[in-house]
Amino acid sequence: VVDRAVTRVVTPGTLTEDELLAPGENNFVAAVAGETGKASQFGVAFLDVSTGDFVATSVRDVSSVRDELARFAPAEAILGPLVPADVVPSDVTISPFDDGAFDSEAAGEQLTRHLRGGAQALASDVEVRACGALLGYAEYARGGAEGDLDYLTHLTRYDPRDHMILDEVARESLELFEPRSVHGAEGTALVDVLDETACALGRRRLTDWLRRPLVDAAAIEARLDAVAELTESVVAREGLHDELKGVYDLERLITRVSRGRADARDLRSLHATLDRVPDVRETLADAESERLAELRERLDPLDDVRDLIDSAVRENPPAEITEGEILKPSFDEELAELRATERAGKEWIDSLEAEERELTGIDSLKVGHNAVHGYYIEVTNPNLDAVPEHYQRRQTLKNSERFVTPELKEREDEILSATARADDLEYELFQEVRRAVAGEVARVQALADALATLDVLASLATVAAEHGYVRPEVGSDGIDVEGGRHPVVERSLSSFVPNDTHLGDNAKLAVITGPNMSGKSTYMRQVALVSVLAQLGSFVPAESAELPVLDRVFTRVGASDDIAGGRSTFMVEMSELATILRDATENSLVLLDEVGRGTATTDGLAIAQAITEHLHDETRAFTLFATHHHELTEVADSLAHATNLHFAAADTGEDGVEFDHRISRGAATASYGVDVARAAGVPNSVVARSRDLLADLEAREEDLVEETETDVTESDDSLPADARE
Amino acid sequence: VVDRAVTRVVTPGTLTEDELLAPGENNFVAAVAGETGKASQFGVAFLDVSTGDFVATSVRDVSSVRDELARFAPAEAILGPLVPADVVPSDVTISPFDDGAFDSEAAGEQLTRHLRGGAQALASDVEVRACGALLGYAEYARGGAEGDLDYLTHLTRYDPRDHMILDEVARESLELFEPRSVHGAEGTALVDVLDETACALGRRRLTDWLRRPLVDAAAIEARLDAVAELTESVVAREGLHDELKGVYDLERLITRVSRGRADARDLRSLHATLDRVPDVRETLADAESERLAELRERLDPLDDVRDLIDSAVRENPPAEITEGEILKPSFDEELAELRATERAGKEWIDSLEAEERELTGIDSLKVGHNAVHGYYIEVTNPNLDAVPEHYQRRQTLKNSERFVTPELKEREDEILSATARADDLEYELFQEVRRAVAGEVARVQALADALATLDVLASLATVAAEHGYVRPEVGSDGIDVEGGRHPVVERSLSSFVPNDTHLGDNAKLAVITGPNMSGKSTYMRQVALVSVLAQLGSFVPAESAELPVLDRVFTRVGASDDIAGGRSTFMVEMSELATILRDATENSLVLLDEVGRGTATTDGLAIAQAITEHLHDETRAFTLFATHHHELTEVADSLAHATNLHFAAADTGEDGVEFDHRISRGAATASYGVDVARAAGVPNSVVARSRDLLADLEAREEDLVEETETDVTESDDSLPADARE
Repeated sequence: VVDRAVTRVVTPGTLTEDELLAPGENNFVAAVAGETGKASQFGVAFLDVSTGDFVATSVRDVSSVRDELARFAPAEAILGPLVPADVVPSDVTISPFDDGAFDSEAAGEQLTRHLRGGAQALASDVEVRACGALLGYAEYARGGAEGDLDYLTHLTRYDPRDHMILDEVARESLELFEPRSVHGAEGTALVDVLDETACALGRRRLTDWLRRPLVDAAAIEARLDAVAELTESVVAREGLHDELKGVYDLERLITRVSRGRADARDLRSLHATLDRVPDVRETLADAESERLAELRERLDPLDDVRDLIDSAVRENPPAEITEGEILKPSFDEELAELRATERAGKEWIDSLEAEERELTGIDSLKVGHNAVHGYYIEVTNPNLDAVPEHYQRRQTLKNSERFVTPELKEREDEILSATARADDLEYELFQEVRRAVAGEVARVQALADALATLDVLASLATVAAEHGYVRPEVGSDGIDVEGGRHPVVERSLSSFVPNDTHLGDNAKLAVITGPNMSGKSTYMRQVALVSVLAQLGSFVPAESAELPVLDRVFTRVGASDDIAGGRSTFMVEMSELATILRDATENSLVLLDEVGRGTATTDGLAIAQAITEHLHDETRAFTLFATHHHELTEVADSLAHATNLHFAAADTGEDGVEFDHRISRGAATASYGVDVARAAGVPNSVVARSRDLLADLEAREEDLVEETETDVTESDDSLPADARE
Repeated sequence: VVDRAVTRVVTPGTLTEDELLAPGENNFVAAVAGETGKASQFGVAFLDVSTGDFVATSVRDVSSVRDELARFAPAEAILGPLVPADVVPSDVTISPFDDGAFDSEAAGEQLTRHLRGGAQALASDVEVRACGALLGYAEYARGGAEGDLDYLTHLTRYDPRDHMILDEVARESLELFEPRSVHGAEGTALVDVLDETACALGRRRLTDWLRRPLVDAAAIEARLDAVAELTESVVAREGLHDELKGVYDLERLITRVSRGRADARDLRSLHATLDRVPDVRETLADAESERLAELRERLDPLDDVRDLIDSAVRENPPAEITEGEILKPSFDEELAELRATERAGKEWIDSLEAEERELTGIDSLKVGHNAVHGYYIEVTNPNLDAVPEHYQRRQTLKNSERFVTPELKEREDEILSATARADDLEYELFQEVRRAVAGEVARVQALADALATLDVLASLATVAAEHGYVRPEVGSDGIDVEGGRHPVVERSLSSFVPNDTHLGDNAKLAVITGPNMSGKSTYMRQVALVSVLAQLGSFVPAESAELPVLDRVFTRVGASDDIAGGRSTFMVEMSELATILRDATENSLVLLDEVGRGTATTDGLAIAQAITEHLHDETRAFTLFATHHHELTEVADSLAHATNLHFAAADTGEDGVEFDHRISRGAATASYGVDVARAAGVPNSVVARSRDLLADLEAREEDLVEETETDVTESDDSLPADARE
């Protein structure tokens, strides 16, 4: 059916079939090239062959490679020589590919051939090698047909430092994209609660923004301005949403067009989308924010393309493109003639029955058609005497005979010939139209880009308006949030208790105590999510929010111990902590949820304290440290820029313990556990003994603190006492 | 096809279709009846309608109902009035059923009708009500056809106190039947490493033994004697295995026979199994242990049944039982006559071709048969002249004509009639044979029971011989195991480090310290599993083992915290602890893995200490308590019948930490965590500070201990000193 044979290699990262792809998600294949010299450097490139998205960057170490791979979550990766396989997350297929494709020269040639000037954006040899190898791989997977990658028009180079870093651990623990399934129940990810997008273009763009929150305050403000404007105008916001709902997935559509795989329906879908562009522009007519105004100007309705399609392609064409009926006859003179001949022939046949009835006097004479014998004149047996001489017998049935006439045969041949020629011609013409549209791939992609951005901005505005978000002030020295909420958790609860956050020069580190389930983890994640939202350009779930620009969010959230897990989870925990202590800056947010559990309480406490001091004295990162080590609250008291926060158990009744989920200043008291034990039915004697022991422990601790505080005085006192003896 | 219409209600617990059932697993439906009076009592019954297994018990409280339900893991349950739904584990379907079926009178009638004297075994009204309701439910689900439950010949009443109690929590944490999937990887359950059974009967019996380890030392010894004898004789063990491999699933087979669902192949399978019984007996000819000898005597080869089947049923019969060819003609005189007539007719036809060729002189004459026209004589066109007068034309083909003769027609009718009558007769006779076999259901079930037991004993002997297990001495006062191993974990490791266990009057409680992954959890589970194995009658993975008879194993193994888990895991932990403190006896084994994590370290410690003291002073259970609370080791030191054990970190090199997995006396030192932190790349300054803090903490603790120990003396001393001033 298609006029060429393409050998297609099916790999998870190079799919273009719509049915195999999630509409709102990119499907990337990644390439990582390593430097052969001494200085460690890696080029990392990502390509979505279904949309043409093509980005590249370079980083200095293996852990950053992991971070970038985690950011784009490719379905598949190819690795150049010297690149260790463990840079790739375990859910990504590593496909073998020719090392030679990563060669500088070969890769450079690939880039020049496919992207013309596009490769100039690249900053280093490793980037060229990653991108070139990736193009080679895409070509290989597509069977290497000529022109098959023409839709790859732009390659974007990005710098990881232009984005907030969210490594794999942070992405997972903050549940940005994948909810953690808990006891088999399906949760909700942040991206889902933000998603009020109208089309697949917007959903993918939203994911991209969430993947790469900004660190440039001006760029953030530009997005916030646009969101603010749409938040204020219900009409604009809902208008945009309604119009964008009719927007097809232009990126994948134009890829199919470019690759010669689009059918007539695809072109009509493109037309339908282009038809909406003027309305979208109109909706934005009064837009004042710079970003919206700029987007409005970029909304090219591609009138030429739209008119071409409309003049050529019928309105409800069939899916099959080789069997005619897809183009308007008016589109081509010869086509029009052929269709006219066809129509004239059919009209003649339509009138034949009446004419022959009159001519022969046989009222029951019928003109019919069947697939094997073509057109015929049918006469029932009683009327066979009246059949004229020139009728030629074709078929004998039980009650009738079927005939043709030379003229009928002739007209039939004429119709058949015209139809066949018209169908062939339509296919030729359709390919011409498709090629013409393919020639405008860059313009269609630019339009898709603008529509995607508008969709995300409208979606963010909708979420902000419907869920009571406020515009954050970004760029302050500290984190000052009033009435902050967890954007995901608040959706699943009928009432969510908001909490304030104040972290800054006075107290940049907070130790958080309180029982499990009281809200510590939710609170810490909420603080991080508010910043992530703000930096991707979204309003935030709070009454007010002044936020710094964070360069990175680190999370160290307790893993569960597991006998069969094999590797020491404590070792993993310490490795994650080492990363935090090494890489965190004073612009980072560090979330620590219970450090040092996998070891004895004493050395766990020693490590926790040393880490707290280091983060406070050296790193000076924004830090929230949830702990069961009551002793850490004293450490926090003793540090100049640290504070204690706590969640309390509200009440311990017969049925257990209730929490009010309200954070307060100061440290939690430690009586909660014993109360729960009592409520759970632990025998009274054990409960009573626990209380006594707890009182002892607390008394000893207080003594210890006093003792330590007055250490010098005491020894000063005791020395003379001893000396006196 | 079948001569009655049964309305079948499909429910998960009442399946009998082989294709829907796991061969080596029971599929139970459970019924729970509650007492209406004041004293709390519950009757619990389990029925596997596919095998006829039917057991019942009664218990005093809701948590015991849960334990029994966990033991048998039914697929479905029905609950009488007053029984709370939460007694049923969450993976069990609760089906609605008529409350009236749980009525004493109605239930009693059901029991009398189906089991004749069988219900006499029952000990209480609630048991009668549970069993009767269950029969009613089975009847309902089977459509209530007459005689459909005839294979339910025996109802076994058991007392939970006759078995080691393994509640749901213990079953899960010890991974007796279901491995815990870890990071998606499939693990191995205890039942799998014990399973060297040869047939489905044995596998189900093994599961049943593991479900209900014994507490009667004599019964345990009887099993161990049998296992010991088979362990010593490779010939007997392997001979049994080979013979039992050919044993069909007699329980499900006889159920189908009884229910009139068995086909001729089923009967031949039964025959094939019976045929092996004499060989099995022969293999056991020299068996000396009481159990084996008794089983040998119980191996009834059912010669009458075997001979009946062999005389009646052909050797490779078709699956369909209504279309003939399943019985031997010799089985019945009339059948033999009909088949003889059929055969004679066919022989006559076979000879017809030669005869007619000679008679007519037409060499190409053929006798043939087709479905529509039956037998015919075919003559090609050139020979039509030679066709005799009495040939009657039937069909005209292109090159030939087909004829019949009156005699051919006659013989044909004769054959057809004989065949049809024979097929019908076979079906009648087959049903008679099947009913006759069904009449022996109890004997077949008894044979199945003996074969199942032999299979398990041989399986246990095989495991013991191939994996270096030893015979335990059961009934001692303490647990004394030399070189014990974890039966599951040792299989997955190339080398497993064995460890001793000594728990008894000197030290019945051990506090175990040491880093995560060093082996604490494996060790504790190993101690429990060795006892479980011994009490089900298995040898144990150790060099030597003296074991008490445990009445129950309790496990309290740390759950992972989970933000979205909703319910407080700490509350769950405390509830489990309350159960342990309430129900454990001095014959119980209690495994505690880190108690009090979900709360502040101080009250966690207070609770842990109070629990330790309670278990030591009051409960006096065998107790292993793994903890990170270093302070608990001092508590253990201070208790008369407690001891400290620990696992050490062997070495902390560049790549992390290695463990030797060897348990030693005394408490672990707490330096491990800091070593790991260093190995994981935590900055040197932080490591150094941690060491200092740790030294401080340890020094303080020692001071405190000394201070406490010398409290009285000191105050005695200080008083005069003060007074002196």
